[in-house]
Amino acid sequence: MIVALAGGVGGARLAAGLAAALPARELTVVVNTGDDFEHLGLTICPDLDTVMYTLAGINNAIAGWGRADESWNFMDTLGKLGGETWFRLGDRDLAVHVIRSLAAHGGMPLSEVTRKLASRFGIRHAILPMSETPVRTRVRTGHGELSFQDYFVRLRCRPRVRGFRFAHRRQAAPPAPLRKLFRAGAVTAVVLCPSNPYVSIAPILAVPEIGAWIRRRDFPVVAISPIIGRAAVKGPAAKMMRELGQEPSALGVVRHYGRLVDGWVIDNRDSKLGAAIAREGKRVLATNTLMTDRGKSLRLAAATLAFARTFATARG
Amino acid sequence: MIVALAGGVGGARLAAGLAAALPARELTVVVNTGDDFEHLGLTICPDLDTVMYTLAGINNAIAGWGRADESWNFMDTLGKLGGETWFRLGDRDLAVHVIRSLAAHGGMPLSEVTRKLASRFGIRHAILPMSETPVRTRVRTGHGELSFQDYFVRLRCRPRVRGFRFAHRRQAAPPAPLRKLFRAGAVTAVVLCPSNPYVSIAPILAVPEIGAWIRRRDFPVVAISPIIGRAAVKGPAAKMMRELGQEPSALGVVRHYGRLVDGWVIDNRDSKLGAAIAREGKRVLATNTLMTDRGKSLRLAAATLAFARTFATARG
Repeated sequence: MIVALAGGVGGARLAAGLAAALPARELTVVVNTGDDFEHLGLTICPDLDTVMYTLAGINNAIAGWGRADESWNFMDTLGKLGGETWFRLGDRDLAVHVIRSLAAHGGMPLSEVTRKLASRFGIRHAILPMSETPVRTRVRTGHGELSFQDYFVRLRCRPRVRGFRFAHRRQAAPPAPLRKLFRAGAVTAVVLCPSNPYVSIAPILAVPEIGAWIRRRDFPVVAISPIIGRAAVKGPAAKMMRELGQEPSALGVVRHYGRLVDGWVIDNRDSKLGAAIAREGKRVLATNTLMTDRGKSLRLAAATLAFARTFATARG
Repeated sequence: MIVALAGGVGGARLAAGLAAALPARELTVVVNTGDDFEHLGLTICPDLDTVMYTLAGINNAIAGWGRADESWNFMDTLGKLGGETWFRLGDRDLAVHVIRSLAAHGGMPLSEVTRKLASRFGIRHAILPMSETPVRTRVRTGHGELSFQDYFVRLRCRPRVRGFRFAHRRQAAPPAPLRKLFRAGAVTAVVLCPSNPYVSIAPILAVPEIGAWIRRRDFPVVAISPIIGRAAVKGPAAKMMRELGQEPSALGVVRHYGRLVDGWVIDNRDSKLGAAIAREGKRVLATNTLMTDRGKSLRLAAATLAFARTFATARG
């Protein structure tokens, strides 16, 4: 069993590649829910939706969120009636939020409604929220602490970040199927998808049971750098690294994770960093990490899995 | 000031005619909220919406509910995901329900969010819910008591009715602007629109303060029969009358209301009933009551207003 930790577009794309490379019983995608928020009376889980839509092949690859085939009549009307439109919700997308919110209101665990929705979208691989209970990423900035979506969508990542906090993380409850994996010893590798280290992967690791399980591991942790050259493929990762005094490069990401990651997958364009990463005590695989289509996602996933297997062999 | 009591399609069409005939300061439309219900986590007020959309000229005249220019991508997706689709909500329509539900959740009175929505739709005349607090029409049938929308939409009015109950009517709180009219003595006539007597007008009259105000009136009450010949223009009114042992005719409607109504507007096709209605002690106006376009709504409204003025003159 491979467990992938994912959030955002890069995470969703690698998860889709892993799902194409592995049978359903051999992959569990654990998704960041720190971005979740309550909006317009609905519970919205942006990363779960991005992973679900991407695995179902109905994601909007250009926008990086929402569905490809979408209409905006709800949002347009909401705007005309004076409602809030800074967070865009498409007409079809809205059905997911309504079903999830109703389920939550009725006491259904988030993992269960996620499973039902994913099944309706024809997804056979397990997608699990990192927690059944709400964990909320808070962004510390020069203008005070912001909720994640305020920072990310409404303020378009403009405020300079000083740090992050994952509210209610101590009460976080990983779903039962994930807890089962903690005990079973059946996990052969954990893959950190090329997601933002601070706001996609860190919230998952901040769930105490998940963090403890990975730290005491008997399996390798391999990660794909979300930074190529000096830039994030998508999103504010490089900007955040600069603002936090870290070097915005694959090497900076390697140093950020430290002992948590055993092997690194970096882009061919960064192969000159290979020696420096090796000096950090890590094994390195350089390949094409830019997932501009589903074929490239599958090839990166397959290369990452093969890389992970070399650790198992080394240990075995 | 003319106060019109309205619910359903006939009520909305006469309300639009009255709004075309009267300046904004001379008309208040009081709308049935007994049909309101909670669905998909939203507070839905079908009669308020029908009146609002009809006054705004954006109603779907063929369906008799919803908006003319509408899309169904939310509902179609909801169905594919296993959600409930028996109550159809269009993508544009949904914006109204979301705004109203958010307002209710935030403690805003229903009359206030209705005023704001109507204003955004360009409506200048006052549309008021009969109560700020929920009143719920319950339908007694051979198969037990049903919620109104269960009976009306889900079961398509098939169950035989035995009676009605307006849950929470004793706690009903008419909006402040309506209470002001109770005291002011400025009302020159109340018009009962050609709405279903049992499930559109009766819930309004069942609000204790509204019923008491109309019974102790110093103004005439005129009504338009929702029955032409032996049939309701739209909806289950004639079926309900038969099931309750009342004659499904304009005369049956007259007898149903008894002393509450002073003058009746009936269709030309029922002019032969004029003498029988006169024997009930009522004045009668026969005219064309079928509002198949906005011009006909305006002409019926103007004729009804002229008819109401003859009572004022008689009393004066």
